[in-house]
Amino acid sequence: MQNISQLELLVKSTINAWQGQNKKVDDLIVKLSDEQWNADTAPGRNSGIYLLGHSVAVNDGIIKLLGFGEKLHPELEAPFLTNGDKTGHVFPSLDDLKKYWKEINTKLDENIKTLSTDDWFSRHTAVSEEDFSKEPHRNKLSILISRTSHQAYHLGQLAYL
Amino acid sequence: MQNISQLELLVKSTINAWQGQNKKVDDLIVKLSDEQWNADTAPGRNSGIYLLGHSVAVNDGIIKLLGFGEKLHPELEAPFLTNGDKTGHVFPSLDDLKKYWKEINTKLDENIKTLSTDDWFSRHTAVSEEDFSKEPHRNKLSILISRTSHQAYHLGQLAYL
Repeated sequence: MQNISQLELLVKSTINAWQGQNKKVDDLIVKLSDEQWNADTAPGRNSGIYLLGHSVAVNDGIIKLLGFGEKLHPELEAPFLTNGDKTGHVFPSLDDLKKYWKEINTKLDENIKTLSTDDWFSRHTAVSEEDFSKEPHRNKLSILISRTSHQAYHLGQLAYL
Repeated sequence: MQNISQLELLVKSTINAWQGQNKKVDDLIVKLSDEQWNADTAPGRNSGIYLLGHSVAVNDGIIKLLGFGEKLHPELEAPFLTNGDKTGHVFPSLDDLKKYWKEINTKLDENIKTLSTDDWFSRHTAVSEEDFSKEPHRNKLSILISRTSHQAYHLGQLAYL
């Protein structure tokens, strides 16, 4: 019983840590002007709008990785995942990206609520059953753990806007 | 039994995530020249050496928070924790900071190995027993979870060196 409770506590803390990073992006959306989003985080480095689009596209990928369905905006892959900033790709408008951010995170949060603790320890969709049997750490929770650090990394850059 | 195993897996993943961020700083120590460490990550922003000292001082704080003893280098608090970069504080040399980084992380890793799963769910030293009884998520593991994101945040900035 104690172990079940510790387990639930840690699963919750892991989810909270990831949602906390998303919340920091929410806060930036409220705080930053369009001019700031369109600026580079440092000379010649990622622009704010690129990092926003990148964050949206990464979270869109989590929908698929956690088995909640297909990506809502697969069109964001080319400009924001497979290619870096300043590679000539046309970006959606800032307003659209902000809308997608909310839309994707709402879908994630709604589905996350439905997962049991056991579900979190099941494989994510990018690992095969065979590989998962050998590497049980490649579970759904591991996606949130790695994406928490990923978002924090880019928040460190967005802080320069 | 399944829950105990899931719990151990998740505790291990949480520790690995934190150590993975430290490893990225290790890699930068090998990769970056002194000139790069002494440069600013963006014009007028944190310098590399400040962020290195800040990371060292934060990990030194973890020694105390996890109950492994006193800080090894409390003299780093003033220049790297209570004050920002460019506030006139004299920094230790880069070589000393790199040495402290290894020394502190070695002490952390050695002590971390000795903690049981239950130990990870006990309170960290900055929360009182009374507060902890109401907020059991303020345990030792929560320190690693928050410091993982913190280190990732600054790694995003160090990437600009």
